[in-house]
Amino acid sequence: MTAPIAIIMGSQSDWETMRHAAETLAALGVACETRIVSAHRTPDRLYAFAKGAKAAGHKVIIAGAGGAAHLPGMTAALTELPVFGVPVESKALSGIDSLYSIVQMPAGVPVGTLAIGKAGAINAALLAASVLALNDPALSGRLAAWRKQQTDAISEHPEGAA
Amino acid sequence: MTAPIAIIMGSQSDWETMRHAAETLAALGVACETRIVSAHRTPDRLYAFAKGAKAAGHKVIIAGAGGAAHLPGMTAALTELPVFGVPVESKALSGIDSLYSIVQMPAGVPVGTLAIGKAGAINAALLAASVLALNDPALSGRLAAWRKQQTDAISEHPEGAA
Amino acid sequence: MTAPIAIIMGSQSDWETMRHAAETLAALGVACETRIVSAHRTPDRLYAFAKGAKAAGHKVIIAGAGGAAHLPGMTAALTELPVFGVPVESKALSGIDSLYSIVQMPAGVPVGTLAIGKAGAINAALLAASVLALNDPALSGRLAAWRKQQTDAISEHPEGAA
Amino acid sequence: MTAPIAIIMGSQSDWETMRHAAETLAALGVACETRIVSAHRTPDRLYAFAKGAKAAGHKVIIAGAGGAAHLPGMTAALTELPVFGVPVESKALSGIDSLYSIVQMPAGVPVGTLAIGKAGAINAALLAASVLALNDPALSGRLAAWRKQQTDAISEHPEGAA
Amino acid sequence: MTAPIAIIMGSQSDWETMRHAAETLAALGVACETRIVSAHRTPDRLYAFAKGAKAAGHKVIIAGAGGAAHLPGMTAALTELPVFGVPVESKALSGIDSLYSIVQMPAGVPVGTLAIGKAGAINAALLAASVLALNDPALSGRLAAWRKQQTDAISEHPEGAA
Amino acid sequence: MTAPIAIIMGSQSDWETMRHAAETLAALGVACETRIVSAHRTPDRLYAFAKGAKAAGHKVIIAGAGGAAHLPGMTAALTELPVFGVPVESKALSGIDSLYSIVQMPAGVPVGTLAIGKAGAINAALLAASVLALNDPALSGRLAAWRKQQTDAISEHPEGAA
Amino acid sequence: MTAPIAIIMGSQSDWETMRHAAETLAALGVACETRIVSAHRTPDRLYAFAKGAKAAGHKVIIAGAGGAAHLPGMTAALTELPVFGVPVESKALSGIDSLYSIVQMPAGVPVGTLAIGKAGAINAALLAASVLALNDPALSGRLAAWRKQQTDAISEHPEGAA
Amino acid sequence: MTAPIAIIMGSQSDWETMRHAAETLAALGVACETRIVSAHRTPDRLYAFAKGAKAAGHKVIIAGAGGAAHLPGMTAALTELPVFGVPVESKALSGIDSLYSIVQMPAGVPVGTLAIGKAGAINAALLAASVLALNDPALSGRLAAWRKQQTDAISEHPEGAA
Repeated sequence: MTAPIAIIMGSQSDWETMRHAAETLAALGVACETRIVSAHRTPDRLYAFAKGAKAAGHKVIIAGAGGAAHLPGMTAALTELPVFGVPVESKALSGIDSLYSIVQMPAGVPVGTLAIGKAGAINAALLAASVLALNDPALSGRLAAWRKQQTDAISEHPEGAA
Repeated sequence: MTAPIAIIMGSQSDWETMRHAAETLAALGVACETRIVSAHRTPDRLYAFAKGAKAAGHKVIIAGAGGAAHLPGMTAALTELPVFGVPVESKALSGIDSLYSIVQMPAGVPVGTLAIGKAGAINAALLAASVLALNDPALSGRLAAWRKQQTDAISEHPEGAA
Repeated sequence: MTAPIAIIMGSQSDWETMRHAAETLAALGVACETRIVSAHRTPDRLYAFAKGAKAAGHKVIIAGAGGAAHLPGMTAALTELPVFGVPVESKALSGIDSLYSIVQMPAGVPVGTLAIGKAGAINAALLAASVLALNDPALSGRLAAWRKQQTDAISEHPEGAA
Repeated sequence: MTAPIAIIMGSQSDWETMRHAAETLAALGVACETRIVSAHRTPDRLYAFAKGAKAAGHKVIIAGAGGAAHLPGMTAALTELPVFGVPVESKALSGIDSLYSIVQMPAGVPVGTLAIGKAGAINAALLAASVLALNDPALSGRLAAWRKQQTDAISEHPEGAA
Repeated sequence: MTAPIAIIMGSQSDWETMRHAAETLAALGVACETRIVSAHRTPDRLYAFAKGAKAAGHKVIIAGAGGAAHLPGMTAALTELPVFGVPVESKALSGIDSLYSIVQMPAGVPVGTLAIGKAGAINAALLAASVLALNDPALSGRLAAWRKQQTDAISEHPEGAA
Repeated sequence: MTAPIAIIMGSQSDWETMRHAAETLAALGVACETRIVSAHRTPDRLYAFAKGAKAAGHKVIIAGAGGAAHLPGMTAALTELPVFGVPVESKALSGIDSLYSIVQMPAGVPVGTLAIGKAGAINAALLAASVLALNDPALSGRLAAWRKQQTDAISEHPEGAA
Repeated sequence: MTAPIAIIMGSQSDWETMRHAAETLAALGVACETRIVSAHRTPDRLYAFAKGAKAAGHKVIIAGAGGAAHLPGMTAALTELPVFGVPVESKALSGIDSLYSIVQMPAGVPVGTLAIGKAGAINAALLAASVLALNDPALSGRLAAWRKQQTDAISEHPEGAA
Repeated sequence: MTAPIAIIMGSQSDWETMRHAAETLAALGVACETRIVSAHRTPDRLYAFAKGAKAAGHKVIIAGAGGAAHLPGMTAALTELPVFGVPVESKALSGIDSLYSIVQMPAGVPVGTLAIGKAGAINAALLAASVLALNDPALSGRLAAWRKQQTDAISEHPEGAA
């Protein structure tokens, strides 16, 4: 059975960031597939994957890429599924290039963009889960519990303060 | 009956941008409510709205704001529903402040962020519709038709070229 | 007795920056409380703290946060007390996101914003002390002495110069 | 009798921005003086004003300037009074130069910085009033009423929405 | 016979910029085709065009786009022909988003990027012509004459100077 | 007799900015020559001018240019005379490109850079005059008078204030 | 016999970046020459090299430089050959100064600009090779093979994923 | 006898940058004085130094500072001598704040600004020397020799190239 969520990324080096999306989904009990799909170096793979994603049974696609990051936007151009984009931090421009390349999509083809780097990867997973939870009460419950645990884990006072 | 999508914005002046979200949803046959909720000037309204959004029957929230734009993120902090943020173009900083304030959320509380301004408002509507379409075949069909129409409307050659 | 100054921050990791505010206040003989209040992960705590800060006896609030830093602005939305914001340096964007999210508040809800990072934390403490000193001659004297000491500590010539 | 608040600005052209501070203070019933003090073109005036501000009876100084905006920081260097800075929008760099020149003060000499332009000028007045209100219950009441009026003025729904 | 140079652009609105490329090529006596190819709204057209460009007889491709500008990079991913990219000036971010989206390509898929806007469109044409001129002495001569004329047209003294 | 100061600029369109340098020098009674020297379109003129500037009797060179502004730096590479650079405001990037291209010179070849646009042009003239004034007491007097007049012209209070 | 491609750079320190261009050309079997040509410190060498490049038999010039990077643009001003520019990452500004100084050329003198740093150096080589391949079927074949190998080397799934 | 050049800096930590100015002047045989003058922490020292600099016999002032760097501009406000500013690299903003605070001076008070960091410090010394050399043939000769040596030191080919 196909996983409801596909996590794709532009290169092996993006895994260090995108694994946080996979781990967050695992913690929420949501199955996902992870793939390397390079918009620039494997455009045919991108085409085949994105065009077939809905028929394959995916519900939401999480796409991470850095620099001139075309993967999320091109995926969104080729599927009607919701696409969430994660700007991977780049070397020279610290991910501002990744962010602009993902978020500034023209009217007509949306990518829901998360923060640069690890926080964005975690949040892409949470956002995707919240979409699935709209029709999955059990997941909705797990998501609520995850958030409650997060809230409860915040100490009242900073450790180290007098 | 509550509309599945709520469009909220920080001030009346944001309507000029956010009406494009409402108009896009109307074109897709998706009902929405529009409200002014200022995180800074009506914080009680924000708390009441966001805490009650799920129980009220909303499925997705679209939030637009400019400058130090806290509305999308604070809404996401107060509901488990998916929240999509639209950075409204600001005067001095052209919406970069709006964008950073919305997209750079910490791990744990996601906001799916769209482009600055009108394109972002349109795309927030399309993204929200694609989420609803996951469980609404009729909407899925209308969304596909909308996209096909968009594709068909692109001329082969620029008007004005020799 | 409640401390006149409350220092709040969005997470434990902000303490490394915000402790400089606490230490500066200690050096000036001004009492303060330190709390972790996450706008996003503990919004109810934020609401309760900020709404009750004045009644609790606080005079000035110093709030530090990073990234899409909503804590200072939301606190200012919920209290009439003066709020001073410290942009904590973020990873990818070096605190520019923190700065814009704090300083670009809309008309009606002010946050007096200090520099990014440690210097901002120290200066938030000095600014808060200068506010209290308006009605506390003894503190005014200590503040003047602190500044004189600072001035006197500047050597005439750089160490290491020929 | 000296006004508790002094509003200073670097040039006549800054008045278009800074008058919003004066008008906001007037609406709150707080007296203020307005002066042109150019750090660069009238440095003697700056030294005389800032060194004498406390003795003259001022409590808070609001300083607005654009470009390489040195007025707020140099004023803060020459007085122990709280100084709030307003970055005036500049032509080429839209006030980013003004903002950085004001907010990035080194540890030891604080300037509480507000938003670029008109919103910053209004908020500087509100912040200064909140400082005075700490020891002026009548002003505190007027400030609370001002804020309540602001909140009440926000419509529930955007004008123009269906 | 296929034109050696194809000028493609993401939308009709880009023509106002890209027509300067066409006009410059016309002035140099180089034939070109102009097409609208939207990476996001007509991805199939993009794939078909770019994959077939070499077989169709094109030698160089000039691609202009704005915002999250994926057209030049995706074209480069799908053809071995030289691709020159023109960042079209965008509304909110003045073309910085366009520039970063085009120039920051990962290793392996190059796009030779020109300046934002009209100057970039003219220069893309000149650069493409210089490539063709490597094997076309007549064009090389016309290009040299064009440059000489450009040099000769620069007055010694500014008009209006005393 | 050669004018002590040469004002060069990259194109006729820069004159609108650079004429302020010429006018300021005229007000100070300092002779200047104005020339269009395009680093990119008239490189031979640049080499000839810059290599011959010292022998021609110039003392200081003021160079204004916009975009990828190479004129000031290349002039400095070709002469030992002091070169002051004026970043002309560019269309898309508002002169940030001009500023970085002029000010970020590598160690070994200095350009004293002024502000973007008109203010920079005026200040380049004042700076050049202050250099000449080091050995011209009469000019020194005129410069002092100019500055005194500037100081005296600053009103105490903003026109329009209550 | 002269190499068809010349790689020039502003200083020895740029070699760490530009060697990737040389290595990529070597992998493709394309001969190149490498030279240090500093626009600012060796302007005569620049002049001689660029003016003589075409007569010397070069076909394409790759120029890398950092900071106020004038080498690519000045080379383009002095030759009709295609020039590709590589912005070398600078210390303080991470190569944004290099990028703007290279890409923002005025109309009339083009530089095809690649990404900041190592990726840009590799891509400059690939782009130059694609230009030569237009008239060199053997090279065209090697380039196609290089790209196919690149595509084949992309794994389907990220190493380390569950 | 007073040194013709004064090098001032805002703090001891700036010496690491500004010592390169002192060393360059020493290599050119130009005497200089080095002082710490903090605009913010020692404003009286700034006032006394800058007002007395001309009478003390200085000819040129080099001022380095970081962050909200007011030292160069305030010095220029208080003396008619030429002032050259060096933006010291700051922690969070990499010296962009320093650069804008120094270079964006309003019309009327010029600061000739050099590059951020070490290169800027070296170049401030070279620029100051070129000013003094206008009336010092011996220094002019040493400066020419220094530049020739710099040119001669550039190798033809990068070390490490094949």
